[in-house]
Amino acid sequence: MAALARSRKADFPVSRVRQYLEPGPIVLVSSRLRGKTNIMTMGWHMVLEFTPALVGCLISSGNHSHEMVRASRECVINLPTIGLTEQAIGIGNTSGAEMDKFERFGLTAEAGESVDAPLIRECHANFECRLHDDAMVDKYDLFIFEVVKAHVSKRPKHPETLHYTGDGVFMVAGKVIDRSKLFRPGML
Amino acid sequence: MAALARSRKADFPVSRVRQYLEPGPIVLVSSRLRGKTNIMTMGWHMVLEFTPALVGCLISSGNHSHEMVRASRECVINLPTIGLTEQAIGIGNTSGAEMDKFERFGLTAEAGESVDAPLIRECHANFECRLHDDAMVDKYDLFIFEVVKAHVSKRPKHPETLHYTGDGVFMVAGKVIDRSKLFRPGML
Repeated sequence: MAALARSRKADFPVSRVRQYLEPGPIVLVSSRLRGKTNIMTMGWHMVLEFTPALVGCLISSGNHSHEMVRASRECVINLPTIGLTEQAIGIGNTSGAEMDKFERFGLTAEAGESVDAPLIRECHANFECRLHDDAMVDKYDLFIFEVVKAHVSKRPKHPETLHYTGDGVFMVAGKVIDRSKLFRPGML
Repeated sequence: MAALARSRKADFPVSRVRQYLEPGPIVLVSSRLRGKTNIMTMGWHMVLEFTPALVGCLISSGNHSHEMVRASRECVINLPTIGLTEQAIGIGNTSGAEMDKFERFGLTAEAGESVDAPLIRECHANFECRLHDDAMVDKYDLFIFEVVKAHVSKRPKHPETLHYTGDGVFMVAGKVIDRSKLFRPGML
């Protein structure tokens, strides 16, 4: 299944990553520093700009990933779907200081095109990121990344992403409604 | 229906607004400056901290609300649900420079407890906000607000929020899954 998902991934315009990130899914952030990899689960992020494709991400200084991302100035934002719920929770409840998370959670690291941080094959999409601005890291743990390369599975068109509400409870992406006819052309 | 929704709203701990904002819904931002009110539809926001309850919001300088929020240093983040889809789109496709959006879209302004900006009665929840940090406004149009008072409808427990994916298409909040048993107690 994993290999199948990967084989269906296609290049995707970085200026359109809002399609996947704006609805607010939890994501898995993968990183690499001095030969070691790590993964964290992240729910606090936002789109900041189309071009360059900027994304704000809160990575707490308490997370092992914080220093890895800060020092390597790179990461990959990976989009898990409902089939990866247990892995996403497991990753969020353990520390990369104590284990190899790819191995522990049975995930496959793949090489990126533009960054050394690994992609997670089993995820629906992978967004390769470079650190764009670290001015807010000391004060808010807020990293601003630029998505420099995006890979998205062709199917399903509307992935069942996981949206965290706290307390161990997730909302799963539901029905899709097209209201484009209500928009002014310039707003689409 | 509107009055009923409002009558069921209760005080809600500001440290827990992530329950509603982290899943990534579009929200309606209401503001007031020199006696005039306005509303904008916003999809780019993120939780930044539990206590103080900080939320990052991108309000483009092209929006009429930008200067109103910047000058008044306040706003209300209102959470619409699927029944307000047309209003949310209408608000996002018009400018407050040209109309009174409360009147145009049949919404009811209510007084807040801690801010002068108006609450939108018909929304599921209302989060009264004060501008906490404007250091990133010039560079990224990024406002960091502190939620100082929260009002949330008691029902439904899991509102059908709208999650924008671009191109006039929305994902509607779907099923809810409780996986709290998979979390370490300290992570809940």
